[in-house]
Amino acid sequence: MNFSPVNIQTIAYILNAELTGNKELIVSGINEIHCVNDGDIVFVDHPKYYDKALNSKASAIIINQKVECPEGKALIIHPQPFTAFNILIRYFQPIQYSTTLISPTAKIGKNTIVFPNVYIGNHVQIGENSIIYPNVVIYDNCIVGNNVKIHANTTIGADAFYYKKHPDSFEQLETCGNVVIEDFVHIGANCTIDKGVTSSTVIGAHSKIDNHVHIGHDTKIGKRCLIAAHTGIAGATVIGDRVTIWGQVGISSGLKIGNDVTILAQSGVGENIPDGQTYFGSPAGPAKEKMREVFALKQLVKLIHKLYDK
Amino acid sequence: MNFSPVNIQTIAYILNAELTGNKELIVSGINEIHCVNDGDIVFVDHPKYYDKALNSKASAIIINQKVECPEGKALIIHPQPFTAFNILIRYFQPIQYSTTLISPTAKIGKNTIVFPNVYIGNHVQIGENSIIYPNVVIYDNCIVGNNVKIHANTTIGADAFYYKKHPDSFEQLETCGNVVIEDFVHIGANCTIDKGVTSSTVIGAHSKIDNHVHIGHDTKIGKRCLIAAHTGIAGATVIGDRVTIWGQVGISSGLKIGNDVTILAQSGVGENIPDGQTYFGSPAGPAKEKMREVFALKQLVKLIHKLYDK
Amino acid sequence: MNFSPVNIQTIAYILNAELTGNKELIVSGINEIHCVNDGDIVFVDHPKYYDKALNSKASAIIINQKVECPEGKALIIHPQPFTAFNILIRYFQPIQYSTTLISPTAKIGKNTIVFPNVYIGNHVQIGENSIIYPNVVIYDNCIVGNNVKIHANTTIGADAFYYKKHPDSFEQLETCGNVVIEDFVHIGANCTIDKGVTSSTVIGAHSKIDNHVHIGHDTKIGKRCLIAAHTGIAGATVIGDRVTIWGQVGISSGLKIGNDVTILAQSGVGENIPDGQTYFGSPAGPAKEKMREVFALKQLVKLIHKLYDK
Repeated sequence: MNFSPVNIQTIAYILNAELTGNKELIVSGINEIHCVNDGDIVFVDHPKYYDKALNSKASAIIINQKVECPEGKALIIHPQPFTAFNILIRYFQPIQYSTTLISPTAKIGKNTIVFPNVYIGNHVQIGENSIIYPNVVIYDNCIVGNNVKIHANTTIGADAFYYKKHPDSFEQLETCGNVVIEDFVHIGANCTIDKGVTSSTVIGAHSKIDNHVHIGHDTKIGKRCLIAAHTGIAGATVIGDRVTIWGQVGISSGLKIGNDVTILAQSGVGENIPDGQTYFGSPAGPAKEKMREVFALKQLVKLIHKLYDK
Repeated sequence: MNFSPVNIQTIAYILNAELTGNKELIVSGINEIHCVNDGDIVFVDHPKYYDKALNSKASAIIINQKVECPEGKALIIHPQPFTAFNILIRYFQPIQYSTTLISPTAKIGKNTIVFPNVYIGNHVQIGENSIIYPNVVIYDNCIVGNNVKIHANTTIGADAFYYKKHPDSFEQLETCGNVVIEDFVHIGANCTIDKGVTSSTVIGAHSKIDNHVHIGHDTKIGKRCLIAAHTGIAGATVIGDRVTIWGQVGISSGLKIGNDVTILAQSGVGENIPDGQTYFGSPAGPAKEKMREVFALKQLVKLIHKLYDK
Repeated sequence: MNFSPVNIQTIAYILNAELTGNKELIVSGINEIHCVNDGDIVFVDHPKYYDKALNSKASAIIINQKVECPEGKALIIHPQPFTAFNILIRYFQPIQYSTTLISPTAKIGKNTIVFPNVYIGNHVQIGENSIIYPNVVIYDNCIVGNNVKIHANTTIGADAFYYKKHPDSFEQLETCGNVVIEDFVHIGANCTIDKGVTSSTVIGAHSKIDNHVHIGHDTKIGKRCLIAAHTGIAGATVIGDRVTIWGQVGISSGLKIGNDVTILAQSGVGENIPDGQTYFGSPAGPAKEKMREVFALKQLVKLIHKLYDK
């Protein structure tokens, strides 16, 4: 998420935290480590990841220990960087409650049909020639392209399922990102596409999604993909172009699925898949190997049967 | 889908296409090859299926090559039969946008309770003594019987998930069919039952469906079936009577599942199942064989363990 | 479900049934056998379960055969105890149809945000500082705590999926229970949590539930659990505290899952799991054993490959 440029001293003041390094630094965004840019604030709360955060593109780092500050950057020392990050997210993007079904700040392009009972949140943008069917819910700040169809009872832009474990509770990471649905995308009925935490969950142009599909926060679906019903893709996974995913597939978080990949029905993907591969099984592997396993198991049954017969 | 009888020359004119064969032919419907009848128009765009289309019950065939016309029939020569078919569907059934929650053309029987926020599209018919819970969406032309319950946030009649692949995009097959829900059916919350492309998706009398179930386009569910939560059944599959399907089962498209079949939880069905069988596994097979495989695998682990111990 | 105390003779009169045993008995509730208490009516319709029902805490038993009545209790002799039970449920809790989106009998605490298009049934109670997103549906009598979030298009309190098979139809067990969502629970978009039949389905404090999750009737989820997307938990199962359930897991009905259990993605659980275990697979077992099976199968494929090569 970006905001109007602010001096880092203001950030330290908001968080009531100690500031070291470049005190004249101007920051203009807040992002997670995987999508951080020049001018951004990031957070890190475990020594294991200190180097990654300090050497990232981020200009300012919220950190729970006093370490040496890299040249030109600024450190904000805070006992709970996760909580500090949440405070900043809600400071720069307060939760807005809309009392109307369609927010007056939403922009809807010409020839777009919005059926009755659709909820469209604040600052949502919808392009031209799109159809939004009844009871669709689009949360604040999401962007929907041209020639898009979204079927009934689908939810675009709910919170990321992202929690930090404390001894007696879970602390949710506040989300300030959005969902971007590119042109010519179709989304079936009763789907859920969650917001990015600080950046965007993206559905690439011409991709078609069946019913009951779940796409997690910050996940990027490429162009011209087909995703069948009941498939769930966890957060921060990147799916290439022209990928075909059959029904009831599960894909873990943080993975990279190449271009032109096919994933057969009910597969459970827990590892990256290179370009052009066909995968199957739970846990999933190359389909040819998995089919050999299916065959081998049948042979084993016959063998055991024989042994017991003797 | 049926329409008022029309001379085939009018169809050729609408499509700006060459006409051969019986030019006096009267047509009154448009259907896919698997549900075609006398008086219907069908399309075929691959030589592999030419014979099937030409010898079907269809009276007129939209085809992408000039072939010999069967006696009494008519051929419409069009470079893109799929697109031509779409043009006819939308010509005979234009998309209608309703601005009211309950269309004035919908018919609702006596003693039927429609909760607040239900969307009921054009020409929908609902029988007597039924209950439609809040936020249910019923698309145009669907038919709901007597003594039916449909729970909240369920979507009846969204588009078929049916696309033709082009080099740079997917072309959706326009849907003009509907959903028919027979008497005494119960449908859980957050389910989706898609429209047939040109005919009906049917849920047979007395069948009971749990939450989050997906039924694809043109699929027929028999009478007195039980379908547990999260099950997905793809398009154009026929399920017999008194079939029990447990949770999270997936069934591929175009299959035939017999009467009195039981499918155990999480099974992935990719083949026809004869009457009376119990199936399990992914890929699914007869449950007894699958249970032998589960047992055999445990024995194998013990064996390998022994070998490594020596 | 509890009701104002009533003499058992009134119950017999409502059901037009014979009464034996303690005719002065006062009853004040109706419950299923697994959650029955002193003062309750229960039903039993199979000799196999007669002893369990007669020796339960229930004060009155609806039974389909004349048996000896335990001291101090009362028996109601009825040819169809299931149907008799249904009659009593609807007698003490008639179905109420609300014509307003938010029932005037609902109570909503201060600082709770209810977005547009939310349906809140009769006698629903919602605590303070909670957020109910658009198009959520909450059926009659459900209770939602403080600091709860429920995302869009989620359904709280639909009917139990519970049917008695008759030769030509299914008879639904009428539900009169509710859902209780404790403090600090988050529920994702497009989830379904069904009502208890006569008691409560419970989501324990601080538990977090992702999108498309289904929780069956009478199931109890402990405190501080995490449940990932597309997981389905059938009815009357008890899940301990601090349980982590990954995506697309299925759990059968009537099970007991211990505290601190982890269930890996796509597992199908058909048996109780002791405290602290990690389970995997379909059918699920201890993850270590299941991983050995995955390894063994790969070895078997290699072995068969070798044999065929020679």
